[in-house]
Amino acid sequence: MSERHPLDEAIALEPAAGSPDLFHGRTHEDYANMVGPFGGLTAAVQLSAVLRHPALLGEPLAVTVNFAGPVTDGDYTIRAVPVRTNRSSQHWIVEQRQGDALVTSATVVTAVRRASFDSTETLPPQAVPPEDLARRDGPVPLPWLSRYDLRFVSGGLAPSGDPAGESATVLWARDDPPRPLDPCSLLALSDAFFPRVFLRTGALAPAGTVSVTTYLHGGEEERARVGDDFVLGRAVGQRFAGGYFDQAAQLWSRTGALLATSHQIVYFKA
Amino acid sequence: MSERHPLDEAIALEPAAGSPDLFHGRTHEDYANMVGPFGGLTAAVQLSAVLRHPALLGEPLAVTVNFAGPVTDGDYTIRAVPVRTNRSSQHWIVEQRQGDALVTSATVVTAVRRASFDSTETLPPQAVPPEDLARRDGPVPLPWLSRYDLRFVSGGLAPSGDPAGESATVLWARDDPPRPLDPCSLLALSDAFFPRVFLRTGALAPAGTVSVTTYLHGGEEERARVGDDFVLGRAVGQRFAGGYFDQAAQLWSRTGALLATSHQIVYFKA
Repeated sequence: MSERHPLDEAIALEPAAGSPDLFHGRTHEDYANMVGPFGGLTAAVQLSAVLRHPALLGEPLAVTVNFAGPVTDGDYTIRAVPVRTNRSSQHWIVEQRQGDALVTSATVVTAVRRASFDSTETLPPQAVPPEDLARRDGPVPLPWLSRYDLRFVSGGLAPSGDPAGESATVLWARDDPPRPLDPCSLLALSDAFFPRVFLRTGALAPAGTVSVTTYLHGGEEERARVGDDFVLGRAVGQRFAGGYFDQAAQLWSRTGALLATSHQIVYFKA
Repeated sequence: MSERHPLDEAIALEPAAGSPDLFHGRTHEDYANMVGPFGGLTAAVQLSAVLRHPALLGEPLAVTVNFAGPVTDGDYTIRAVPVRTNRSSQHWIVEQRQGDALVTSATVVTAVRRASFDSTETLPPQAVPPEDLARRDGPVPLPWLSRYDLRFVSGGLAPSGDPAGESATVLWARDDPPRPLDPCSLLALSDAFFPRVFLRTGALAPAGTVSVTTYLHGGEEERARVGDDFVLGRAVGQRFAGGYFDQAAQLWSRTGALLATSHQIVYFKA
């Protein structure tokens, strides 16, 4: 009698007739952003197509998603093509279309992981546990923000609107309702930071991710140990110039394992 | 009477008959690696195709290159398709083939930059000037290493073979012979760090980049001010697990402008 989690509803795809590469999907109101879906959800949908493909080898290692144009509420198709399959890795090109318009492109690398030297070198920042922090809403009310329990350790938006000297945010994050961590939810979570330019200028401004690349580390067993617990995230802008800034982000388990590293380039007007 | 720089020879492409998207090229002995070309050169070749395309809009902003299979010495074709053109940005999918085999895939975002809030937030590490350091060869003699003047500030390979507690390298780098910095040379330079796992384990080991994403900041005028001077690079591994590690890298001008941020995921055996 358990209902499906809203994230699973939102990344659901139907195989299309005629080709194993083609899927049909539809935007979901729970993950709506200002215009179209939350970018992290759009990223997760591209990966979802790869993970449903009958020819899949291994598990997700690297995902790059390019937001080519606005996704509008409604139907879309996704084509996920395994362009090269090696012994222990596979390369994918993914294209999301609405009508004739390409709205998103992505490349995915999947791989079979094996035991190796294992070390988290970039350690998590000091943070009080999420239980000691209040849940916070985002800077503006948006449907997708209700699907995440975000608790800011540092670098929340200053109510005074003061520009900050640096753009770092540290926060605890998990799905709402809680959901066991998997590659799709981790990918979406890695895009849950608000635009860094808000912190640096102290003001909301038009901003949107152009391209994001996320590397998933540690594999399925490590994610299983996280379960539906909070993950600790840190994001910082490295350079702002010419109408674009980049953001480097990390997501750790509560026990300090680095689960994902993510980087994005963001359009802004300020 | 000036000869062409070896990098320009190595990224040269001939438009193919029949489609503006198709180009012919050939590997160049000066940039040979252990097997096939230096990965940074392969990345630059994908971008070179986009920059030669008659429909190009703007300048490079984000480049993701997936090394799907080994590039063997000899001929290749590149197909660079502008999959979406917006008012001030353009999205590309690039595929490099040898015979029928896809060897490299890439996505590129080009954009028209405009004046905005401008700040380098991630500052360069302390470093003595390159003139005070001796040029160093790589850990093994390879043709492409002769095409770069690399001077290590810290994090060179320890001759003792001792594992290091961290994988950070800081170095000065420029083309040899010196060449004015442009998007293709900057992209290649961002892959000029040796595998981080060598530092962490203190030993050479099989390793190869699987996917690299580089964001170019600051634009053409800023690169023109760099000219053919050294750039300062820093690279660090964040997580090693399951036979893969990631590397986060930055490249600054001598005056401290962050020119590029780059991230890659690397296969290794250790």
